[in-house]
Amino acid sequence: MSAADLDARDPLAGIRAEFDLDPAVSYLDGNSLGAPPRRVADRLDDVIRKQWAGRLIQAWDDGWWDAPERIGDRIGPLIGAAAGQTVVCDSTSVNLFKALAAAVRLQPGRDEILVDARTFPSDGYIADGLAGFTGHTVRRVDPVDMPAAASERTAAAVVNHVDYVTGRLHDMPAITDGLHAVGALAVWDLCHSVGVLPIQLDGCGVDFAVGCTYKFLNGGPGAPAFIYVARKWLDRFEHPLTGWAGHRDPFAMSSDYTGSAGIGRARAGTPDILAMSAVDAALDIWDLVSIEDVRAKGLALGDFFFECLDELLPSASVLTPRDPARGHQVSVAGTAAQLKALAGRGIIGDFRPPNVLRFGLAPLYTRYVDVERAVHGLVSVQTG
Amino acid sequence: MSAADLDARDPLAGIRAEFDLDPAVSYLDGNSLGAPPRRVADRLDDVIRKQWAGRLIQAWDDGWWDAPERIGDRIGPLIGAAAGQTVVCDSTSVNLFKALAAAVRLQPGRDEILVDARTFPSDGYIADGLAGFTGHTVRRVDPVDMPAAASERTAAAVVNHVDYVTGRLHDMPAITDGLHAVGALAVWDLCHSVGVLPIQLDGCGVDFAVGCTYKFLNGGPGAPAFIYVARKWLDRFEHPLTGWAGHRDPFAMSSDYTGSAGIGRARAGTPDILAMSAVDAALDIWDLVSIEDVRAKGLALGDFFFECLDELLPSASVLTPRDPARGHQVSVAGTAAQLKALAGRGIIGDFRPPNVLRFGLAPLYTRYVDVERAVHGLVSVQTG
Repeated sequence: MSAADLDARDPLAGIRAEFDLDPAVSYLDGNSLGAPPRRVADRLDDVIRKQWAGRLIQAWDDGWWDAPERIGDRIGPLIGAAAGQTVVCDSTSVNLFKALAAAVRLQPGRDEILVDARTFPSDGYIADGLAGFTGHTVRRVDPVDMPAAASERTAAAVVNHVDYVTGRLHDMPAITDGLHAVGALAVWDLCHSVGVLPIQLDGCGVDFAVGCTYKFLNGGPGAPAFIYVARKWLDRFEHPLTGWAGHRDPFAMSSDYTGSAGIGRARAGTPDILAMSAVDAALDIWDLVSIEDVRAKGLALGDFFFECLDELLPSASVLTPRDPARGHQVSVAGTAAQLKALAGRGIIGDFRPPNVLRFGLAPLYTRYVDVERAVHGLVSVQTG
Repeated sequence: MSAADLDARDPLAGIRAEFDLDPAVSYLDGNSLGAPPRRVADRLDDVIRKQWAGRLIQAWDDGWWDAPERIGDRIGPLIGAAAGQTVVCDSTSVNLFKALAAAVRLQPGRDEILVDARTFPSDGYIADGLAGFTGHTVRRVDPVDMPAAASERTAAAVVNHVDYVTGRLHDMPAITDGLHAVGALAVWDLCHSVGVLPIQLDGCGVDFAVGCTYKFLNGGPGAPAFIYVARKWLDRFEHPLTGWAGHRDPFAMSSDYTGSAGIGRARAGTPDILAMSAVDAALDIWDLVSIEDVRAKGLALGDFFFECLDELLPSASVLTPRDPARGHQVSVAGTAAQLKALAGRGIIGDFRPPNVLRFGLAPLYTRYVDVERAVHGLVSVQTG
């Protein structure tokens, strides 16, 4: 079937109109920065001109202060988290620090942290940064080897749900169970899976998770991240970033810190309302679509990408698995110069060293014609 | 002189038009949340519709990635920091954690952190949170007693430049010198002084400082904070929130962390561009005014507040010092019910437990008539 036919039959095709995208551009980097939902600009205008200007300080009582928990609970259904376990705040890196710091506190006597050796580097840097203060050993392990590598020495392990280079999707139930079998806590990084595939944090018994909102959730460049703390740990989730926003009664201005009874204790400083509001507006899209439909289209876009490569560029070195154990990207060996040449043709992907071209497939707005065009572009820059 | 006459002679009176404020409201809480600069809404619209939508991922290379340092250097002149020592990122609480963590690392063998006993509580919570991981003792000391209390055991001391309850301005040169005399590092919290009075961090030899941008800098609710690291410490500023944005070469995706050579090493996660852009737009006001003129008007507004109280409400219990060793607020004993009654009359201040009404004086938009109205309101709610 042609790309145009596939687009014509795509039940999500109409959703693209929700985004402010130039039709002449094939944007295939939604796995790095999501496209702007049209409603974000209007929402921010409203927050600034009506809430901030209109209500001034009083707006904090009109829903601003609780925005982190409220928006967290809007992300909950996408990650299989019942209400009250997810909060939007800080960056992914800062939230991972909280999660790992809390994890090692819960695991006295265990002196090791395992880190997905293929994860986005920031996760490893954060584990190293924490370990520099706590004295833990950080060991980098391929996720598939994680259950075998974990032992009674392992306090916690961080795994990225989707490999940011290859797009490989890791087995959350099996890895989580494997870690739990030796008493290690499982911390998942959902940056590359949230908003494209169904996730079952509660169902898998995951302990903690973090993720960003600026990729497939389209919350804006560097938008606030989220953190999930399983209900069973909420009472004992103790991290050192004990800013006033995590206090049980912040406006009492007590000199002693007592963490909030719920997920709010994962908060640190004053929430950034403009940034939060952009995330909130971007999440409205989930009133229109289901994660199952998004997942189905994402796999179909990937399958179509592979078919086009097989047909038009059989020499391509493809890093992304063809089976469904993958996220929503296709990675092909290539050079930074090729990426630049593609951009000149209106095809926007990204490059990761040393030699990977990544093409993100964001089902809310990526078209089959974008995939076809990317492969034609690759043919041109890799064989032309 | 009447309030109207004072407003008519106010050289900063015209600046109020830069803000989106209802003329019928006397907004006296700019020390908690600054008023919205008109240009912020337009700037965000531009960032979303032109930069994000127009350039997509490529906008990161067009100035987004370096925004934290660039905007930090715009704050530099307000805090007496030469270029390259200030960066905008994260929240004040998170930045204070970085500063204290780096300070205790620089001071092996010193087992104590002093915290301003009157500081905004979050600072103490953060010190306690860090100490819970490092084993340091946290001791709360009144800032005026800080030099005497510090000893060779003291790794660092955190002092708030302006007491958030009373408005007392603390003596930065004397306290900093006193701490240095025993080898302790001085960490200043500038939340309540930045944007209202001249600060000389470099001149005072301050080691580290943090501050927010959502009070007198008008960057928006919960806007990103800043952190200052004195040049002499930049090479050795090691904090544990080692996210990729602080890496010397983040896009190399190395598995090892090497901090940036400059102030960038104080960054952690991906910068929030929408939030940063609001701060950036709000800082444009400093192209029109000088901090010296702002300071002069702030003291004059305070003096006028005291005069009105003396004349109209001599029974008022005033907590703010009358000498110029004060920030830009006047605090009066009162109740939450009185605050609410004032709000019903269009006079917006805030309440801090157990019994303090605070009235912020933001010279960029506060009018003498606002002060007069506040005092008339106080007369009514406290004696009526």
